[in-house]
Amino acid sequence: MTARPLSDHARLSINDATTKVQWTLEEEIAGYSALGVHGISIWRDKLAACGVAKAARMLAEHGMTVTGLCRGGMFPSDTAAGRQAAIDDNRRAIDDAATIGAACLVLVVGGLPQGSKDIGAARGMVHDGIAAVLEHARAARVPLAIEPLHPMYAADRACVNTMGQANDLCDALGPGLGIALDVYHVWWDPDLEREIARAGKERLLAFHICDWLVPTRDLLLDRGMMGDGVIDIPQIRGWAEEAGYDGFHEVEIFSSENWWKRPAEEVVAVCKERYLTAV
Amino acid sequence: MTARPLSDHARLSINDATTKVQWTLEEEIAGYSALGVHGISIWRDKLAACGVAKAARMLAEHGMTVTGLCRGGMFPSDTAAGRQAAIDDNRRAIDDAATIGAACLVLVVGGLPQGSKDIGAARGMVHDGIAAVLEHARAARVPLAIEPLHPMYAADRACVNTMGQANDLCDALGPGLGIALDVYHVWWDPDLEREIARAGKERLLAFHICDWLVPTRDLLLDRGMMGDGVIDIPQIRGWAEEAGYDGFHEVEIFSSENWWKRPAEEVVAVCKERYLTAV
Repeated sequence: MTARPLSDHARLSINDATTKVQWTLEEEIAGYSALGVHGISIWRDKLAACGVAKAARMLAEHGMTVTGLCRGGMFPSDTAAGRQAAIDDNRRAIDDAATIGAACLVLVVGGLPQGSKDIGAARGMVHDGIAAVLEHARAARVPLAIEPLHPMYAADRACVNTMGQANDLCDALGPGLGIALDVYHVWWDPDLEREIARAGKERLLAFHICDWLVPTRDLLLDRGMMGDGVIDIPQIRGWAEEAGYDGFHEVEIFSSENWWKRPAEEVVAVCKERYLTAV
Repeated sequence: MTARPLSDHARLSINDATTKVQWTLEEEIAGYSALGVHGISIWRDKLAACGVAKAARMLAEHGMTVTGLCRGGMFPSDTAAGRQAAIDDNRRAIDDAATIGAACLVLVVGGLPQGSKDIGAARGMVHDGIAAVLEHARAARVPLAIEPLHPMYAADRACVNTMGQANDLCDALGPGLGIALDVYHVWWDPDLEREIARAGKERLLAFHICDWLVPTRDLLLDRGMMGDGVIDIPQIRGWAEEAGYDGFHEVEIFSSENWWKRPAEEVVAVCKERYLTAV
């Protein structure tokens, strides 16, 4: 079932990668809030630049809901020391997510280790890495959200590429683990409706939106604004709502040649407009 | 099981897109043959430039095995006339494939019709389009080979993106229909081993090889030579052989910035070398 149009911005969140080059985190918290957007998702580089304590204070002062911290993950490595370093880093990310009250820590799980062609082994390292940090996440009350990435990132960013794989990991590893559904990564999947239903309300921790442009000129930095591409976002949102999802919708657009070149105020205004017409 | 190394070039084929800009079809037939490659797969634009009858004669004279004609498909359209035009074009392609003795007609099935966001409807049009030409293909004794394309081409080239979808279409439509497995498109698929086994010897009509480069700089024209990327080709070949595949291995490399800029003789020589070390 296609979702009904959204009528207000109460559940709109903006992932701060969307204004990556225009604004600092301080400017984003103040700017999004002033422009009527009360959800934000934050990348760790900007969080570090601001300082975690200061960010937590500003977020509270501005009444912002933090829909996610980006990102944990990157578990596979060709060395045991590398895998341990990833685990340690994920624990720090969990602590930071707790400090800023993030609804989840988004996991971009990682791709093939250096020199490896064994994607099955990489997937095993992801399983083991999540297992190693999950108890820490549960204790901190920070749900971990596996984000299946588009298969074009399987080698270098994430070897979990479908909702089905993410659901399998959730089945295997239990509570405290869920999924960040990004329409950009999964819109093509013939099993999408079924796997969203399988995930259900408990596992659907985040819903990310943008659009797939035709043509897409860059594998990483050419995402489109909602409505400018070919993804039937209302259909996918409808499936998520049928599964019980009632959380925020988080705009995340990497766009080196278009949106990152425009004033942040304009980008936020277009996000708000398209949220009501194309999501 | 990983396949045993190949010890000769008896089953090496080169898809003529690999020397797309260097050679005409006439030069390819003579050149590949002279360099010890006795399989070729041909694109229709080059076939048309040469002329079908002349190509058939030259192929026979040089003892070439034609492992495929590229391509039929492109079934979805926003108009009934457009869908009929695609069906008519596929019938002509089937006739040409029969004339040159191609082992199969490769189907790049098509993406979303102009203005559409309904990938389910596009997939239905693919089913219906194949159904409409399959009897013609059977009568001409030209097997149709659905080529699942990487999900990054779902919008504009092929909405069949996994071996599982291709197997479902084969289940639905029956004899005369099979699959062209290209490692570039499917290497990331967690269900790959299972779906190759499900396909079996009867459906595995072609096995295409190249490599996924890290980084990949262009969605279309940055494929790598076998061994230069991250695909475990011997593993996938092993799965195909377990399923009974004993046909050619067809090199297909679109590479505007590298291989298309080198002399064709060098490209063929490297294909032959890597065939024994990385396939």
